[in-house]
Amino acid sequence: QSLRIGLIPADGIGKEVIPAAKAAILALGSDIPKPQFIDLSAGWETFTRTGVALPQETVDILRQDCDCALFGSVSSPSRKVVGYSSPIVALRKELDLYANIRPVVSVAPVVGEKPSVDLIVVRENTECLYVKQEVQTVGEHGKEARATRLITQRASQRIGQMAFELANSRPRKLLTIIHKSNVLSITDGLFRETVRSVPTLPEANGKYDQVTISEQLVDSAVYRLFREPEVFDVMVAPNLYGDILSDAAAALVGSLGLIPSINAGDSFVMGEPVHGSAPDIEGKGIANPIASIRSAALMLRHLGYTKGADRLDTAVDQVIREGKVLTPDLKGTSTTNEVLEAVLRIL
Amino acid sequence: QSLRIGLIPADGIGKEVIPAAKAAILALGSDIPKPQFIDLSAGWETFTRTGVALPQETVDILRQDCDCALFGSVSSPSRKVVGYSSPIVALRKELDLYANIRPVVSVAPVVGEKPSVDLIVVRENTECLYVKQEVQTVGEHGKEARATRLITQRASQRIGQMAFELANSRPRKLLTIIHKSNVLSITDGLFRETVRSVPTLPEANGKYDQVTISEQLVDSAVYRLFREPEVFDVMVAPNLYGDILSDAAAALVGSLGLIPSINAGDSFVMGEPVHGSAPDIEGKGIANPIASIRSAALMLRHLGYTKGADRLDTAVDQVIREGKVLTPDLKGTSTTNEVLEAVLRIL
Ligand SMILES: CC(C)[C@H](C(=O)O)[C@@H](O)C(=O)O
Ligand SMILES: CC(C)[C@H](C(=O)O)[C@@H](O)C(=O)O
Repeated sequence: QSLRIGLIPADGIGKEVIPAAKAAILALGSDIPKPQFIDLSAGWETFTRTGVALPQETVDILRQDCDCALFGSVSSPSRKVVGYSSPIVALRKELDLYANIRPVVSVAPVVGEKPSVDLIVVRENTECLYVKQEVQTVGEHGKEARATRLITQRASQRIGQMAFELANSRPRKLLTIIHKSNVLSITDGLFRETVRSVPTLPEANGKYDQVTISEQLVDSAVYRLFREPEVFDVMVAPNLYGDILSDAAAALVGSLGLIPSINAGDSFVMGEPVHGSAPDIEGKGIANPIASIRSAALMLRHLGYTKGADRLDTAVDQVIREGKVLTPDLKGTSTTNEVLEAVLRIL
Repeated sequence: QSLRIGLIPADGIGKEVIPAAKAAILALGSDIPKPQFIDLSAGWETFTRTGVALPQETVDILRQDCDCALFGSVSSPSRKVVGYSSPIVALRKELDLYANIRPVVSVAPVVGEKPSVDLIVVRENTECLYVKQEVQTVGEHGKEARATRLITQRASQRIGQMAFELANSRPRKLLTIIHKSNVLSITDGLFRETVRSVPTLPEANGKYDQVTISEQLVDSAVYRLFREPEVFDVMVAPNLYGDILSDAAAALVGSLGLIPSINAGDSFVMGEPVHGSAPDIEGKGIANPIASIRSAALMLRHLGYTKGADRLDTAVDQVIREGKVLTPDLKGTSTTNEVLEAVLRIL
């Protein structure tokens, strides 16, 4: 038996950190099925070369020949380019990876970190403004552009179920629903009510009775995240709020370079560091590989390979705690490879 | 000559802080035209009493009999209530108060504050998802809700002009355009391009040549705000991003209870503290009046009463710096009235 992992480094530092994650996975030996890596292309560079940001071949191979995947990061053009649109947004939709799960945990001591952050942002991953239904018209006073924000009961329910499952599995069992229903009473109202009603669904059957539900408007949530992050356990949010919240949470624990995620659906999972392609440090070999290694761990855990996932997490946490081999984003002077090697030594 | 100021305390602590702002204005004596206050109603309590959240009378009097206004804060129902919608959002639109200007400045030393924050969030105040065009339908898989996000060239241009004016008047002359055009290429693309092109308009006529323009995706902007807030000077953003960003910035300087704003149009200005109605401390007499007093100062400054505005700001800054009379949000033990009295003593 083998584990077929699609690798899509895409752009910028994605090409530096995904190979590090691959090396870390390879070091797990018999704790996981024999990994088999399949290199796939997508991104801005792919677009400039081929005119397509997400080749159909990439999607087909992911669907047919992969058990899971790791995605790096994409660059965006600095101006609108006709025909280009983000391949990561498209992939999430194509593979119906409806949940973006982003744990943010402080390991301490890390420079600039707030201690005792231990939360998970559960971000809906397929709709909200990310449906990208936009039109431009010309009105009396010039151009007018409109985008549609879609919130469905179906998507809100399945992300709600995922969030309740996660909350229920954690010691504090707290779920905070993020919305802005004081303004968006219909769309965010539907999100809020649907998530709230998950425990009353027949299939829930009492299993979420221990979960405490609370709510927070998205603006206050960002404020509280910064002031008292320890109040949050699991946060569930529509797509765009989740995007912003997870960056906000990342800022609390020292660096975006530490924050992993998975894009999860019912039949596929794709790990992805939360950071972007970081054009400012691209090619310098100093990108932090930890977010990608942790994303690999999350992916393995989601697939049931707990032992392999635990080993990766333990090794990474130890490197952070020792604080000797850190990349510049954590005020260290080490390279991507040095951090990888430190992780591999512990593995 | 008199200065006619509409007072709309609305709900919760709005009813405690707006009277404090009124007292501070009254103490300015001949530095401003003789103030004449007109009490007006709006809000959730008004709605529960009358079935209308924003009485037409309030709008009419503001339009016809007021030079400016101070708004407190509104409570929202915890569930959707038919017929209720936020009176502050409606007022901004009714009076075409298209710019929401929110300066966030650290005075130090304040508990939990990041030093050297000195920025202004310039938030578009009339469109984006705040047009509240929402519909709910029933599809194959249950309920589906859609909201329209509107971005126009006209609104983007006028908020852009306001932002360039402000940036140009400040020592650093930096303007950061906030958007998410990697996903919303048409709507946020229009916002970005329109703001960028303000310096090339005939009426600009070289006057913004000294302003340095940069851009930041909204998710990264929140991240950077937490990590290195000193990089920002003036930030201009569509409505919802501006809402979130200003709360994020507020978290940097110790308390939302410090952050003022004005809602400004071409012919009217309304001061408004950025904090909400704070149901948890309502009625206890411990709400921080500083955001409201500062909002009064911003309003007076906008109207050209610089001397009065300066006096209010100087007094407030001194009270904060002394650190002896502070409300609980700043880890003090003083009441709203004690802070007001401290301000009045300096005035
Ligand atoms: C690159 C961009 C489209 C993406 C998003 O907004 O989802 C990124 O910010 C993320 O958080 O994964
Ligand atoms: C009360 C609410 C409608 C309002 C907004 O979202 O604009 C508030 O959060 C603000 O920032 O003034």
